[in-house]
Amino acid sequence: MTGYSIQQIATALGTEVLGDGTIIVTGVAEPGQAGPDDLAMAMSAKYAAGLAQGSARAAVIGAGMDWRALGLQAAIVAPRPRIAMAHVTCALDPGPVIAAGIHPSSVIDPTARIGAGAAIGPFVVIGPDVQIGARARIASHVSIAEGARIGDDALILQGARVGARVIIGDRVILQPGCVIGGDGFSFVTPETSQVETTRATLGKADGAVTPQGWTRIHSLGSVRIGDDVEIGANATIDRGTVADTTIGNGTKLDNMVHVGHNCRIGQDCLLCGQVGIAGSVTIGDRVVLGGQTGVADNLEIGSDVVTGASTIILSTVPPGRALLGYPAVRMETQVEMYKALRRLPRLAQTVAALQKAVFKTDKTS
Amino acid sequence: MTGYSIQQIATALGTEVLGDGTIIVTGVAEPGQAGPDDLAMAMSAKYAAGLAQGSARAAVIGAGMDWRALGLQAAIVAPRPRIAMAHVTCALDPGPVIAAGIHPSSVIDPTARIGAGAAIGPFVVIGPDVQIGARARIASHVSIAEGARIGDDALILQGARVGARVIIGDRVILQPGCVIGGDGFSFVTPETSQVETTRATLGKADGAVTPQGWTRIHSLGSVRIGDDVEIGANATIDRGTVADTTIGNGTKLDNMVHVGHNCRIGQDCLLCGQVGIAGSVTIGDRVVLGGQTGVADNLEIGSDVVTGASTIILSTVPPGRALLGYPAVRMETQVEMYKALRRLPRLAQTVAALQKAVFKTDKTS
Amino acid sequence: MTGYSIQQIATALGTEVLGDGTIIVTGVAEPGQAGPDDLAMAMSAKYAAGLAQGSARAAVIGAGMDWRALGLQAAIVAPRPRIAMAHVTCALDPGPVIAAGIHPSSVIDPTARIGAGAAIGPFVVIGPDVQIGARARIASHVSIAEGARIGDDALILQGARVGARVIIGDRVILQPGCVIGGDGFSFVTPETSQVETTRATLGKADGAVTPQGWTRIHSLGSVRIGDDVEIGANATIDRGTVADTTIGNGTKLDNMVHVGHNCRIGQDCLLCGQVGIAGSVTIGDRVVLGGQTGVADNLEIGSDVVTGASTIILSTVPPGRALLGYPAVRMETQVEMYKALRRLPRLAQTVAALQKAVFKTDKTS
Repeated sequence: MTGYSIQQIATALGTEVLGDGTIIVTGVAEPGQAGPDDLAMAMSAKYAAGLAQGSARAAVIGAGMDWRALGLQAAIVAPRPRIAMAHVTCALDPGPVIAAGIHPSSVIDPTARIGAGAAIGPFVVIGPDVQIGARARIASHVSIAEGARIGDDALILQGARVGARVIIGDRVILQPGCVIGGDGFSFVTPETSQVETTRATLGKADGAVTPQGWTRIHSLGSVRIGDDVEIGANATIDRGTVADTTIGNGTKLDNMVHVGHNCRIGQDCLLCGQVGIAGSVTIGDRVVLGGQTGVADNLEIGSDVVTGASTIILSTVPPGRALLGYPAVRMETQVEMYKALRRLPRLAQTVAALQKAVFKTDKTS
Repeated sequence: MTGYSIQQIATALGTEVLGDGTIIVTGVAEPGQAGPDDLAMAMSAKYAAGLAQGSARAAVIGAGMDWRALGLQAAIVAPRPRIAMAHVTCALDPGPVIAAGIHPSSVIDPTARIGAGAAIGPFVVIGPDVQIGARARIASHVSIAEGARIGDDALILQGARVGARVIIGDRVILQPGCVIGGDGFSFVTPETSQVETTRATLGKADGAVTPQGWTRIHSLGSVRIGDDVEIGANATIDRGTVADTTIGNGTKLDNMVHVGHNCRIGQDCLLCGQVGIAGSVTIGDRVVLGGQTGVADNLEIGSDVVTGASTIILSTVPPGRALLGYPAVRMETQVEMYKALRRLPRLAQTVAALQKAVFKTDKTS
Repeated sequence: MTGYSIQQIATALGTEVLGDGTIIVTGVAEPGQAGPDDLAMAMSAKYAAGLAQGSARAAVIGAGMDWRALGLQAAIVAPRPRIAMAHVTCALDPGPVIAAGIHPSSVIDPTARIGAGAAIGPFVVIGPDVQIGARARIASHVSIAEGARIGDDALILQGARVGARVIIGDRVILQPGCVIGGDGFSFVTPETSQVETTRATLGKADGAVTPQGWTRIHSLGSVRIGDDVEIGANATIDRGTVADTTIGNGTKLDNMVHVGHNCRIGQDCLLCGQVGIAGSVTIGDRVVLGGQTGVADNLEIGSDVVTGASTIILSTVPPGRALLGYPAVRMETQVEMYKALRRLPRLAQTVAALQKAVFKTDKTS
């Protein structure tokens, strides 16, 4: 890991050094595990004991903490600790090792155009008419199919799959094993199917079934991903049927997020681990979906919506709404409903007592 | 993309051309984005404005729409729009580029038998005693382990994993990154474990724990997949313990579906995105499980069952049932329960008022 | 498959042979499908009919079953059937075919150290400063990034991804497609974000939004995995921000389990299919999480906790607790709440009748 002076890091954070800015650090550590060349991340008072245990000379500390009393020789005060964490970890991240140039084992179609300064690892396959941006880094075992376009400074990690005609913007990060541009899951029966009847009647038409097989709707569209997007490990984004499935600039998808065919996801969204978006969903900007959130097909989710973990969205959501639960309702409504449910057994007892008093009967409901 | 005349497409759909059947189209598009060589998909009246915006000469339209008034030179009327979509997209899908023959970089065991006309891409590994069917297409980075059999006309996409002795039927599609034949998740403790006690007592026996480790039950069975099956990107199907895990003809699994060891899934089922089926579950024919549906282990799900998104099945389900919720109940029951829950806070207020009136007390429940 | 005598298997199980211990078996089978060289697994009375149908000469049977009456020539009585299954399947598992030595197609950095007797398959990439333990077996298409360490006797299956500086213990099994050491999902906005406000107010502060993008917190930590751990197909474990994400000895993760950055998971846990653990969660020892269980970020789960399928944990859990539901509560409480909810529509009717009787009104709540 390269070393940085405390002064350099403070400058990157847009803040001042307290103490000796010439100290060089080569890594970050939790206060208790920090060695003398580590920058300890001690951004709240609870880390004071850890600092005493470890041997950090320099730390990032929270506002109001006394660096001298903590035994430090240098400190940087971070008014917003996680922003400090972002800048410090960015500066100290060595990044993945992907050797410069094109590894001789890779199979690159002669019609592909590789941007200046791109690095391509072993066993990469790049198909016909692919364009790779300048300085893009592509790790081992990646496949990029015919006609795909990868932007400048993209980082595509081990075994990621990019399908035919997928377009990926600048500075995008694809984590290992993600699949961009698998076929959409779209099948139809010759006659009205059981599942169509069920959806139309909310399940009131059980049982009247004509057995029939599924005919496949092919995916002629592709996937378009904006700039500064990150896609998590083993996540999947399916291609559209006619138009493209799209992901807006700055949106981040966590591991194993699934985005179905024809979805249009806006800018600066966060989709946390294992979120599932069914087909043809439209999502606005800055939407944050908690882990395992599910969204049923053909819905619209407005901008600035936030969901708690495992929220299941079964109907359209206006902008700015905070949701929780299955099915999703306003977060505070869910909390009220849930409290009432916890008190329900007692409520039933009360009603039984009332019933006895009013109707002079022992029958409990 | 190859061109087709409108007459050819109408014939494939088993319907007539309105207008000029000689027009050639080379792709499909949404009405508003369509160019003069695109077939616009405008199967309901809401697309009329789009047709005016775009420059399509030909379109697939819905019953009752007036093609001349829409400004078209040719039209095909689709009585069931999604079936039309299936046929049109099938005709126009260029399919993935996988060069004919066997790529020289592939590692193919000399005991493997490769069918006539099979295409095998770069960096594919095919183990001992594998059989690959005629005209099968295998994209880059796929591995097919010892003794596996792949049917005719199969399409196995990038980085799919086929384990030892797995049997896969004709015309099966494996999307990128799926894993067929990982080991089952099956472990046992020497003495009765905490989790066994919990399941037996529904959690009433908290706390009495003898620490012990897990012994692995190996998977000697494999996986058998019928004809015309599709497996989604990054989906996983585990091998059986003694017998094989099986998937019936015509069943389709979406991305990230998990099928545990020993499951037997029938024909023509649809398992939507992120569905999880625990071990030893039996599922009938034509079952449709909505996205994120979960099924607990050792259950039976009858034929023609349909579940809404994120339904969690914790007990056996008779045929033809439509289910929703956690735990799963009949869809209409769930809707009733849910409505009642939303009214519960008001019900509690009513009971408090009754209590005050009847018992002359201020105490609220 | 190698053959074993019934006597050898009985010895492995620590039990006696009934009948002819010299019979050689080469596989296991369900009773009805068993051939003469198969050991039938018939560990409860329900398998008696199957034994008559098949042609097994030898079987593992349950306590109290009469081997002669079942038509067997040899039998092994298993007091705890699943333990017997573990030992028998272990003995008879041929394991994956991974040829001895290093496949010539693999790309191994000259600074990597490969342990004695290790087997490395085709198209494997091993980066700088990697250490591979003795007798480790690494299947095709695996990548192991710079500075990672793999223990002795590890089994790393097709296409598994091991990130930079990840440490993996002895006898660990990585199923195909799992990703160990993807980057953590950790982003921050310059100013307080909508999602922070929502969490602080439980959604009561809808709407007051300043649009802003996400800044990435890089993952400088790595992942440490103990001995005897198994990681399922397409599962993902993210690296820590500063410290490492850790998995204790003997813990098993099923397919598509997601473990977020900074998590610390104890020993001998079972995390079933599609479980999702958000960032910075601490989990004790011997915890068993049912399939699709979700755990929100920054929580502590005590040792010996057990959850039912799809339980969603939104708050810290003391040791030994059995949980169910969304949100998770004690399993028996959940069952009570659920029963009350099913009776709720009837309760509402009773309250309406009371209201009418007491207040002499027709108004229903």
